Amino acid sequence: MNEMAVAYDPSNVFGKILRGELPAHKLYEDADTFAFMDIMPRGDGHCLVIPKAPSRNILDVSEESLAAVARTTQKLARAVVKAFSADGVTVQQFNETAGGQVVFHLHVHVIPRFEGVALKPHTGQMEKPEVLTANADKIRAALSEI
Amino acid sequence: MNEMAVAYDPSNVFGKILRGELPAHKLYEDADTFAFMDIMPRGDGHCLVIPKAPSRNILDVSEESLAAVARTTQKLARAVVKAFSADGVTVQQFNETAGGQVVFHLHVHVIPRFEGVALKPHTGQMEKPEVLTANADKIRAALSEI
Repeated sequence: MNEMAVAYDPSNVFGKILRGELPAHKLYEDADTFAFMDIMPRGDGHCLVIPKAPSRNILDVSEESLAAVARTTQKLARAVVKAFSADGVTVQQFNETAGGQVVFHLHVHVIPRFEGVALKPHTGQMEKPEVLTANADKIRAALSEI
Repeated sequence: MNEMAVAYDPSNVFGKILRGELPAHKLYEDADTFAFMDIMPRGDGHCLVIPKAPSRNILDVSEESLAAVARTTQKLARAVVKAFSADGVTVQQFNETAGGQVVFHLHVHVIPRFEGVALKPHTGQMEKPEVLTANADKIRAALSEI
């Protein structure tokens, strides 16, 4: 990769979610960030945090936007532990295709973890909407209590 | 996990590195953060960012310390792309044993990635010191240029 910052393309699915052009199981929103359920979860309660400002990934995001994403990531990490009585949390953030990135709007994966339960592979399988709704309800309830 | 924040134990190896009780291939340091080579890299140039303030993981870190870690993580992500002409970067942060955490001082993994090259498994195998030194030199040179 010769250029460190590749241009942001607003047609990505998270850009569409931010503009209300696609639905999402919304968990949290503030002036700078938005959090919602991953529809292809690698574990129960797998959610995503994104900045509202357009940025492709960690290579081009502004310092302020990244700090806001970090704050919301911490909120969600604490919330999923509470919501699911999780034993731990795995946080992942992928940059460019070689780094594991599939959607080119900066996003942080927050995945509650449980003793003895491995992450599910990336099968590309969508979770049932009723499961996502139930898990989103639990996380929102936990967010309101912490 | 019933308690969201488990007490910090200063005897962990990253605490020892911060206190100068163990050596490290230092890459970067500012008032709030420290970055160094992972001695059991999952890929060439795998490095770590830690806060200087004692914190176990994302569940107990202060907002200010987490923002500082995010800033330094971005610096290192940009530096490893430049240093190794990497195609991408994988950022990981593990919380509690079930979340993948082994050393209980908050740390962020920054791993340069290359098309077609998978992450190495966690073998527990130490990298040769001369390889770590050479890679650290490259990253420090890149940091001084960005």
